[in-house]
Amino acid sequence: MTPVIVNGESVTSDSRNKMVQSAAALIGSQGMNATSFSDVLADSGAPRGSIYFHFPGGKRELAKDAIRWTSDQVMAHVRASSPGSASEVLQHFVALFQHVVEASDGAAGCAVAGVTIDIPASDDELLAEARAAFHAWSALLAEQLTVAGVASERAAGIATIAVASVEGALILCRAEGGTAPLDAVAIQLQVLVAS
Amino acid sequence: MTPVIVNGESVTSDSRNKMVQSAAALIGSQGMNATSFSDVLADSGAPRGSIYFHFPGGKRELAKDAIRWTSDQVMAHVRASSPGSASEVLQHFVALFQHVVEASDGAAGCAVAGVTIDIPASDDELLAEARAAFHAWSALLAEQLTVAGVASERAAGIATIAVASVEGALILCRAEGGTAPLDAVAIQLQVLVAS
Repeated sequence: MTPVIVNGESVTSDSRNKMVQSAAALIGSQGMNATSFSDVLADSGAPRGSIYFHFPGGKRELAKDAIRWTSDQVMAHVRASSPGSASEVLQHFVALFQHVVEASDGAAGCAVAGVTIDIPASDDELLAEARAAFHAWSALLAEQLTVAGVASERAAGIATIAVASVEGALILCRAEGGTAPLDAVAIQLQVLVAS
Repeated sequence: MTPVIVNGESVTSDSRNKMVQSAAALIGSQGMNATSFSDVLADSGAPRGSIYFHFPGGKRELAKDAIRWTSDQVMAHVRASSPGSASEVLQHFVALFQHVVEASDGAAGCAVAGVTIDIPASDDELLAEARAAFHAWSALLAEQLTVAGVASERAAGIATIAVASVEGALILCRAEGGTAPLDAVAIQLQVLVAS
């Protein structure tokens, strides 16, 4: 990777990626409004000069990229599951979030939710990014459930409650400081898909 | 109600209630950090002099009261349901949120979530308030489901996914600008309780 020099500091696309990842983690755990560029620089170790080089659109651009990065992580995780039963599809999806919640004692959250809750309802641009993320996750889960033999209309409904209940459980886990709500959701999703 | 005069302005406990209700609505729809006392005064029509009279603890006290007010609203709604089937218990619970989401085209959210997402994980005081709210809703739903004949362990699990999926669906509805995700959750909760 070729470093670019801005104001005497080395700025690489690697530092951009690190900033986006830090932003995703920080927005997930404290919301978008509490997350400043200074927090992101401190967390990512990126040089200060890189902010306006990488994010000429400022914090909104960083938030948009944090949503996309989070969405890509979820999609890559779900796609990486071996073809299996409908039960395994849901278990694999929830496991990603269980891992994150467990590793942080509930403190970690989802950047897509952290942006969606913190922006005005008139912010069409960022809401469209969030909507695209939630739709992509639901559509992929529904597709995998259908391949596993679930009728397509039912698969769409189960995919929606899977995404919604995981997003809500992240909030409950944060209040709880632990994984219990998400673990309960995981069990009920299994009951639902077996019904 | 006896008005109290502070800095020449009339300050009643009615104005305090209005401020708490406004704060709950604003925190639910834009998060805690974006919600200022000025927003709350503008929305509630309360006199400026009432802020430090009613909320000597500042915005944290207002946020705490917004959580409690929201929680009380949910509890009162759930308690007001006539004893019925397990299906009716869940339908009645979800209907409260469907009504709010429909009336706002998805913009309205939950103040408990709006605080929980926006505060640091180290904020034990406010997280305890949020935890108490979520626990109270789940416990009441579980009790009603048990009375309706659902085995108690299963009732607790269904109550948890009901609260989690409604909280998550509020976020999806906000991204969507409509009620579709919550409507899908309502259907799947019915399938789950019937299984």
